[in-house]
Amino acid sequence: MKTLFNSGEGTDGTLSIASAFAGHQEDRDHKFLTKAVEEEYKGVECGHGGPFGAVVVRSDEIVVSCHNMVLKNTDPTAHAEVTAVREACKKLKRIELSDCEIYASCEPCPMCFGAIPLSRIKRLVYGAKAEAAIAIGFDDFIADALRGTGYYQKANLEIKKADVSGAVIAEQVFEKTKVQVYHVLIVDRIEIYGCMRQNWSSSLS
Amino acid sequence: MKTLFNSGEGTDGTLSIASAFAGHQEDRDHKFLTKAVEEEYKGVECGHGGPFGAVVVRSDEIVVSCHNMVLKNTDPTAHAEVTAVREACKKLKRIELSDCEIYASCEPCPMCFGAIPLSRIKRLVYGAKAEAAIAIGFDDFIADALRGTGYYQKANLEIKKADVSGAVIAEQVFEKTKVQVYHVLIVDRIEIYGCMRQNWSSSLS
Repeated sequence: MKTLFNSGEGTDGTLSIASAFAGHQEDRDHKFLTKAVEEEYKGVECGHGGPFGAVVVRSDEIVVSCHNMVLKNTDPTAHAEVTAVREACKKLKRIELSDCEIYASCEPCPMCFGAIPLSRIKRLVYGAKAEAAIAIGFDDFIADALRGTGYYQKANLEIKKADVSGAVIAEQVFEKTKVQVYHVLIVDRIEIYGCMRQNWSSSLS
Repeated sequence: MKTLFNSGEGTDGTLSIASAFAGHQEDRDHKFLTKAVEEEYKGVECGHGGPFGAVVVRSDEIVVSCHNMVLKNTDPTAHAEVTAVREACKKLKRIELSDCEIYASCEPCPMCFGAIPLSRIKRLVYGAKAEAAIAIGFDDFIADALRGTGYYQKANLEIKKADVSGAVIAEQVFEKTKVQVYHVLIVDRIEIYGCMRQNWSSSLS
């Protein structure tokens, strides 16, 4: 059987769309991941921060290619992935990247892994396992993001829930501002950081 | 028994240092949490983003007081807590905030909860439970940060680990750059985003 694709020949001599597509996808992933890795080197060479790179891709085109900027920007949140999300949004002039993918040189830390879905990025491809970064001295909590365990118990951070009055004043803001929030974020057709649900009308009733 | 404190009388008529301290701490927490809540209102009024505020405090003084800036900055990572960490670092001209506390109007989302320990902030006090935000339409994954479960499985995101060659090129960067990273980040006495461990010398051997 002949197909529209001219690659990916099966064992029976036929061409396989699936294998052609898979091959193309592998090549594509490799290309963009390589770019993210190049950014890793660049960031370290410049002394901008740790050895981490990330690339945001849309329709096979690189939107932004970034590296860790923690030192350069004096900003502990300027990891490669967060920087890439920020820069891509700035470039595309919107706060959601649902038509984009992100290629990260390393398994994202919990912060970055939290940031990626907030931007609605649809696909993440990462290179190094977190253990590779841990092996050179980075804290081992970075391995906990994708695995969803341990980190929150291990974090060396005292956490306190406010007392009743504190919780009340904090929680009532949601009630008090929900109409305003609705107008600013939904009526004006701006969807806040990709995590508003579609149930506004019922929550406003 | 008389103490140096003039408040917190016990049931037996004695003054209790512990209760005086606890009372002071409660008042203090309430004051700064109230400020975070004020920021919530301010942010919504200005149309800068969702109803979330955060305050970074050092030695009983407010370093920065911020609100969600997602819309204003076209940046889905500009949540109140991340913004507060970034602004505090900028103001104090350093990337670690180990002598600071953060007061968040709401239970932090996974990204923010990941960012806080990266800055080495020593204490988090939050007001509203995530459910209060969820109730007005925010996505329910925000409730998963402190609880450490579910989110990573629920995220609507395809995640792919790179193939072997991709992983190799990504992982070897750590090996190739570790001396450079060591010099930039440790020898120069700059500790990258508060998560480098003290075992550099052994990892370099």
